[in-house]
Amino acid sequence: MPRVTFPAMASLPLSSLDASREPRRQEWSAMPLDLEALRPLAARVKATPSSKNPDDWLSAAAPSATPAERAKLAALVAAAPEPSFARDASRIPALQRILKTKKLAALLVPRTDEHQGEYIVTRAERLKWLTGFSGSAGFAIVLQKEAALFVDGRYTLQAPAETDASVIECRHFKKPPAIEWLAGKVRKGDRVGFDPKITSLVEAERWREALTKAGAELVALDANPIDEIWTDQPGDPFAAVRTQPLKYAGEASADKRVRIGEMVAARGAAATVLNQLDSIAWTLNVRGGDTPSTPLVQSFLVVAADGHATWFVDPKKLTADIAAHLGNGVTIRPIEAFAAGLKDLAGKTVTIEPETATAWVEQRLVEAGSTVIRGPDPSVLPKARKNPVELASTRKAHIRDGAAMVRFLSWFDDEALGQSELAVMDKLEEIRGADPLHRGASFTSIAGSGPNGAIVHYRSSEATARPVENGTFFLLDSGAQYVDGTTDITRTIPVGKVSRALKRHFTLVLKGHITVATARFPKGTGGIAIDGFARRALWEHGLDFDHGTGHGVGVYLGVHEGPGRISPLSQVPLEAGMILSNEPGLYVTGSHGIRIENLLVVREAKAVGFLEFETITFCPIDRRAIDATMLSPAERAWIDSYHMRVRKLLEPLLTGKAKTWLIRMTKALR
Amino acid sequence: MPRVTFPAMASLPLSSLDASREPRRQEWSAMPLDLEALRPLAARVKATPSSKNPDDWLSAAAPSATPAERAKLAALVAAAPEPSFARDASRIPALQRILKTKKLAALLVPRTDEHQGEYIVTRAERLKWLTGFSGSAGFAIVLQKEAALFVDGRYTLQAPAETDASVIECRHFKKPPAIEWLAGKVRKGDRVGFDPKITSLVEAERWREALTKAGAELVALDANPIDEIWTDQPGDPFAAVRTQPLKYAGEASADKRVRIGEMVAARGAAATVLNQLDSIAWTLNVRGGDTPSTPLVQSFLVVAADGHATWFVDPKKLTADIAAHLGNGVTIRPIEAFAAGLKDLAGKTVTIEPETATAWVEQRLVEAGSTVIRGPDPSVLPKARKNPVELASTRKAHIRDGAAMVRFLSWFDDEALGQSELAVMDKLEEIRGADPLHRGASFTSIAGSGPNGAIVHYRSSEATARPVENGTFFLLDSGAQYVDGTTDITRTIPVGKVSRALKRHFTLVLKGHITVATARFPKGTGGIAIDGFARRALWEHGLDFDHGTGHGVGVYLGVHEGPGRISPLSQVPLEAGMILSNEPGLYVTGSHGIRIENLLVVREAKAVGFLEFETITFCPIDRRAIDATMLSPAERAWIDSYHMRVRKLLEPLLTGKAKTWLIRMTKALR
Repeated sequence: MPRVTFPAMASLPLSSLDASREPRRQEWSAMPLDLEALRPLAARVKATPSSKNPDDWLSAAAPSATPAERAKLAALVAAAPEPSFARDASRIPALQRILKTKKLAALLVPRTDEHQGEYIVTRAERLKWLTGFSGSAGFAIVLQKEAALFVDGRYTLQAPAETDASVIECRHFKKPPAIEWLAGKVRKGDRVGFDPKITSLVEAERWREALTKAGAELVALDANPIDEIWTDQPGDPFAAVRTQPLKYAGEASADKRVRIGEMVAARGAAATVLNQLDSIAWTLNVRGGDTPSTPLVQSFLVVAADGHATWFVDPKKLTADIAAHLGNGVTIRPIEAFAAGLKDLAGKTVTIEPETATAWVEQRLVEAGSTVIRGPDPSVLPKARKNPVELASTRKAHIRDGAAMVRFLSWFDDEALGQSELAVMDKLEEIRGADPLHRGASFTSIAGSGPNGAIVHYRSSEATARPVENGTFFLLDSGAQYVDGTTDITRTIPVGKVSRALKRHFTLVLKGHITVATARFPKGTGGIAIDGFARRALWEHGLDFDHGTGHGVGVYLGVHEGPGRISPLSQVPLEAGMILSNEPGLYVTGSHGIRIENLLVVREAKAVGFLEFETITFCPIDRRAIDATMLSPAERAWIDSYHMRVRKLLEPLLTGKAKTWLIRMTKALR
Repeated sequence: MPRVTFPAMASLPLSSLDASREPRRQEWSAMPLDLEALRPLAARVKATPSSKNPDDWLSAAAPSATPAERAKLAALVAAAPEPSFARDASRIPALQRILKTKKLAALLVPRTDEHQGEYIVTRAERLKWLTGFSGSAGFAIVLQKEAALFVDGRYTLQAPAETDASVIECRHFKKPPAIEWLAGKVRKGDRVGFDPKITSLVEAERWREALTKAGAELVALDANPIDEIWTDQPGDPFAAVRTQPLKYAGEASADKRVRIGEMVAARGAAATVLNQLDSIAWTLNVRGGDTPSTPLVQSFLVVAADGHATWFVDPKKLTADIAAHLGNGVTIRPIEAFAAGLKDLAGKTVTIEPETATAWVEQRLVEAGSTVIRGPDPSVLPKARKNPVELASTRKAHIRDGAAMVRFLSWFDDEALGQSELAVMDKLEEIRGADPLHRGASFTSIAGSGPNGAIVHYRSSEATARPVENGTFFLLDSGAQYVDGTTDITRTIPVGKVSRALKRHFTLVLKGHITVATARFPKGTGGIAIDGFARRALWEHGLDFDHGTGHGVGVYLGVHEGPGRISPLSQVPLEAGMILSNEPGLYVTGSHGIRIENLLVVREAKAVGFLEFETITFCPIDRRAIDATMLSPAERAWIDSYHMRVRKLLEPLLTGKAKTWLIRMTKALR
């Protein structure tokens, strides 16, 4: 391929590149690459979630690299140190010495980063580095002479196994809540430190209130004391940033920003500060790879009432077409300039979402003399209401994903018996990976054989993995990121012949799934009103499941996104265009787990003022697990018509055994 | 009957009777009655909701009266002036002159009294007296030069018809809300008056906040300015107070008070102040007749942490056995001593419910130096969770009420055609009234013929009443107060042959009713999760109804009681012992209304941790309106088994035509 020079920078607004402390981009002339200058980037790449294409970062950092240069750069990455989270019991005592120096009675150690999302950047894995605990949710409090790690029911076994009891005690996060536990420990006048950069506004206020009541003081620290002792803390992640083309996004970033700006203005504000990475990716129509499982770009965004935006991001990550894509309406500034950017809002009225904006953002704004108005992140609802192009796009991704699932399930029937959960997961990943638009898993699969299926948030490991076993259910909850959509599907596979009792449970869950899938409801109905539909058949038999029925899903974005949910906890009205999961389940500890999950699109029903669901996941629901005598005629009709549609959509994509399997598994119920 | 002297006063605690400004009771010796002294009582009786037995008040005021004396007293009542609410457009201008004198820019005129219940005492009908508006919900704001009455959709026609447009403007209560409307009218420094005695704490705070923002001041008035011009304002109601025997109540007042006291203590308080009349009646196991449709006693109650209570009530109302019934654990003080009683709590910690306690109560407590803790009225949940005796008692009342309904429905089939809604209501009241335990209607019946049935809160009048007409639905929502229970039932009666379309609508509503009646659900489930069950079948056809599915019901208490509800608005967990209505409906404006209502008891299901419903209303659901082809086998089975149970329970109570009707109407569906 011919070398090309990089013309985009010229079209950026003049203000878009501050004098950055980092070296300027290397690749905008045809000069040979300065490999040494790229060495720091290589270390950052090493601390970035792995991409399907390990050289992907070069498409931003060195698009003009020759094959020889690419090989050298790959060697640089290979040689860079792997972020280490090896267990080390000396870290907590070291931190405690720092607390004494700083006259802090305690330090709060949440598992969060600056962006308050579900996934965090590696450099923010302070809880894991400090304690050894690798779970996805946890909270530590380090006092001068003791420390406690608070985890939920999922982690009550894992946490003690990963941590050192001589330096930290593991506790259930509700017995008592961390906040009460600490309130009972502090004395009058004690100072409790927290890192405002990684703590949300409301979270900080909760702690401040409780500690003030207890006579102590919550102190916002300028720097996180853990970083002082974490000498080999990784740098910021580095993944290439690409535009999300209009053919998938359906709405230009400029138009989205105008809409957001109008909402900001309607609230009487001059600007909003977005720190949620999926909000930013959606608003700018960009995708990256800085966090696991989701194509996000570490950055911050300020959107003004007139729709103009300032994007604080490492400019070296941007691929060639980004600047042209964003146009004059977006000023690009280095991420290090974010604090300065907040200062630039001095005197203005700024709206931020207290649940997700950090305490540090508010602190900076208040110090700059801005007036802060609290309100929801204005991008969240527009993002949740997918436009027709996004829906068409994700439907296509779902059809291809369904075909991949069928190939996998056909393989499973023939070859999985006796294989471990991990091997099964690998096979599915391999099959999905053949799709050229595939970009990775949308979350780590939950693959539970037999009793492991009963662990709702189970994560297979060499230690826990069970083989696929006859007479049991194999529960597989997985999803993929494609450039044109995000999938999330659970199938419960009967291995060999399963008992009547298992079929009965499966069919009760299926009835709930169908009752949700066929629901029609007036606009304004919250997810809580639909949630009961998923449970009624189970409830009738004194059974239930301990999670919500459905969560929002993005389009080549997060597999969990707000605000709509089908949950006993959510009164948010469902709206046309939202994508939600429909995943009732049933879990019998030590025996089996069942979950049947399809994604739904909320759409207008024929009746004026009513909404209904369109199922967009296409994959047979295993007929061998269904007790058809338990289904009403309407329920049987739904299954048959769903399977007819699945066959019609997937058959053209399949051949050989997979096609035969599809046809067999989509026959009408008898 | 022999004369008896009244011994009870002697057993009252010495502190129980303050020197009252009212004459002492006349009847505690065998001396002839001082009729003249009873004249003021007669006027109060006139302003009291009418009792089935017009002489009932004498059982408290003059139990020893001879027949001749009773006749004279009846004449006294007859001669007393009827409270007059005749429309008079001069009242608002008169009030406006007072506002000017008092330098008030505006006065808030709610339709509430000191007890914040659904029904108010006649002397508190200030809104009606001032404006002419007689609806059950409304709110006026009188400014110096204008006035506005805010009503909901039910009253947008009635309000202008009843009020004088030259002095007051009728407005929809949401366009804009009254609070915003006033905030837009006031100027900086304006004083807005309100009566803290009839305004709840949170309501006052809402207004204070909005007005403060607008630069105005909310001023708590010592006296209601309307009372200055309402020269013939009635006195307090006067109805006899009776004990509610243990055989119906199931728990002694002393035990209830100990439980309440424990909750008060657990909240760190020394006492609670109850001003809700149903809370007081339940706590003390007393019933009266001071408000319409509910057997309540105008009073206030202070319950101390040790269970001792002070009851502020007109002692002349108490029948002979009350003092013995209450025992030494309750001190009786005249209602006029309530302010002094609050002062007696000086320095103590007192808990009150901010939604129902009045601003005046808090004001008095704070002025007395009490510490106020806000929290729910501690009697509300125990009252809602009926005990087994209450449940057995109300089941009996429901069986007798069902038999009365069958007598009525049998009459309706034979004789109602062409009769007016009002005549039909009278007939039902007459039939129910034959029960010796009957004490009146639990609310004004909603009897809508044809299109009138589509008006959800319809109230028949000579002007609106339609005759019973062939080919239409007659919707009848009614209920009764019995000494042993409170009923609330709606039946939709097909008159002659009704169309397939009407039957289809009826059957959709019925499906919702059955889906609720047969629901089983885990403890902790809120009413909102059940509410959708009532709507699913309707929603499927793009239909819905614009009210909750069910409300709480008392036992010889309010037909509406909190906190449990089956409603899209209620997250309160349903609990065993709660009585709830199950009343889905469907309303087609100008054509027909359908509602099918039974009462349910929440009870433990066999499955541990689960609850289910027991239907306790026994009356056929009209099979002639059912399209049985639309029902599932399970739904048909429910109808048939319900009807079998209805027949079994009611048949022994019926004879003749009614019995034949019952048997015909409870046959299995074909």
